[in-house]
Amino acid sequence: MSASDEHVSSLVVVGSIALDTVSTPDAFERKGLGGSATYFSAASGLLCHPQVIAVLGEDFDRSQLNFLVERGVDLSSVTTHNGKTFQWQGTYGNDLGEATTLRTDLNVFADFKPSLNETQKACDFLFLANIIPSLQLEVVEQSHAKFVAADTMNLWINTERPTLLKVLAKIDLLVLNEAEANLLSGKKNIIDSAHAIQKMGPRTIVIKRGVYGAFMLHEDHIFSCPAFPTTHVVDPTGCGDTFAGGLMGTLARHGKVNDAILREGIVVGTALASHTIEGYSLDGLKKATSETLRARYAALEAMTRVGAFDM
Amino acid sequence: MSASDEHVSSLVVVGSIALDTVSTPDAFERKGLGGSATYFSAASGLLCHPQVIAVLGEDFDRSQLNFLVERGVDLSSVTTHNGKTFQWQGTYGNDLGEATTLRTDLNVFADFKPSLNETQKACDFLFLANIIPSLQLEVVEQSHAKFVAADTMNLWINTERPTLLKVLAKIDLLVLNEAEANLLSGKKNIIDSAHAIQKMGPRTIVIKRGVYGAFMLHEDHIFSCPAFPTTHVVDPTGCGDTFAGGLMGTLARHGKVNDAILREGIVVGTALASHTIEGYSLDGLKKATSETLRARYAALEAMTRVGAFDM
Repeated sequence: MSASDEHVSSLVVVGSIALDTVSTPDAFERKGLGGSATYFSAASGLLCHPQVIAVLGEDFDRSQLNFLVERGVDLSSVTTHNGKTFQWQGTYGNDLGEATTLRTDLNVFADFKPSLNETQKACDFLFLANIIPSLQLEVVEQSHAKFVAADTMNLWINTERPTLLKVLAKIDLLVLNEAEANLLSGKKNIIDSAHAIQKMGPRTIVIKRGVYGAFMLHEDHIFSCPAFPTTHVVDPTGCGDTFAGGLMGTLARHGKVNDAILREGIVVGTALASHTIEGYSLDGLKKATSETLRARYAALEAMTRVGAFDM
Repeated sequence: MSASDEHVSSLVVVGSIALDTVSTPDAFERKGLGGSATYFSAASGLLCHPQVIAVLGEDFDRSQLNFLVERGVDLSSVTTHNGKTFQWQGTYGNDLGEATTLRTDLNVFADFKPSLNETQKACDFLFLANIIPSLQLEVVEQSHAKFVAADTMNLWINTERPTLLKVLAKIDLLVLNEAEANLLSGKKNIIDSAHAIQKMGPRTIVIKRGVYGAFMLHEDHIFSCPAFPTTHVVDPTGCGDTFAGGLMGTLARHGKVNDAILREGIVVGTALASHTIEGYSLDGLKKATSETLRARYAALEAMTRVGAFDM
């Protein structure tokens, strides 16, 4: 079954398409396609028809994005500007945990002024990938989306906090990792952090915990999802954006948001992120299909199944 | 409902009853009851009628154990020897994570030679708490228990590995924390570690991950359980033994072992450990009842609930 068989709501993502140079214990300075919007749309493209708003440099070979078009991703708002494409270089230690950024060349991304057309302004679901909060704010202020989610990072929490707080006041869901959640909230445990961030605006907080899975506080409901038990860990780059794509793609597929659909989205995001980590660049995620997604979803469901307690 | 309303299998635990001196960010050198068998039986006593095999010094006021008797714990094999009771002193950092041991005075525990009577030898379920592997081996070789579980620690993995491997070859279930599992297996991720330890003997490996919950590999089934979302963290001492008591008490309550019952036991252990962490010494766990256990079990079940995926 393809996503086109379903009636789905519109999903717009604003983020980066990048050329990455990644070093892992098994690869030195491996170059490949990257960027938050790339991973996000490759994941959500399995679930709905996301529209990408991003900018490329003249050096970018657009044929690299053909696989996204084949997945049903709308790239008509991916524009090419004079200059070079955004480049990121990072390295991972032996534990393949958090990346250390070695170099960030914003290039055409430095002047990126995302502009939504009338259709995009009226989209159902909007995702603000991890870009500077002032840009996230411009986008969310242009939009009349029914549901807005955003990602952020320690850099913006430390340097752009006032603007980030303005963004938080306008969004429905924030996704970030555990260390970032604690940094943003000033709290030490995930429960306190999530409640503190909820008070900043978003009704739903989704916290990524790497090999420990994902945590959600939605209104007063808590959900905990383990990581998919893969032992084939190659390159974690893009796992967070893949996860967000699976989550938002699921919300758009259902066209509504509630606790059960958010849980489904988190499990879908977890299943798709496990594909991403199994290959360099987009190689792992390219192998994901409806069939592999269903199989990994079922494995995660089985891993968490708890029976009734009748004492 | 009390545990006495149920037909339950016999459960024997061999471990320590101790006098602890614990420092946390909020308490300096707080003295209190401790010991692996104490926490284990306080937890399992809510589920079945465990028998404790342990040794006390002449300095020990037995009235401290009255609450265990009230829970249905059989202390008739807790003997008093000439000398002082086992004492442990530890301290926790601001994260209330792993304890640092400051002092261990084995005292009467140094000459502890656990001896099982005929009834105990024929018990259904036997738990070898974290004691030196040579003693664990002596006990397991005396016993004809249907199901044997054991705990261990980094000290024994580093210093008593050959004897520990003999124990592992004779038991059904090993419970240990994640760092210990990686140390024992030489692997880096929990999936590989659990599979490697399974090859050493036990069919079921339960790995404790602190605030990240618990993980089980049973035959080829994986189960992941989150920690109970308490924000009232006072003293983690005894959480591991409480967890094991809830798990083994559940197995004894059902009188059989399968994937579903093991999962129930892990959730019960997690729920009871959340009581332990909420107070010093046994204060938190003393407040646990069938009612609080049912409520926390239900909360954990709700936290992990995943719906079907119909794409």
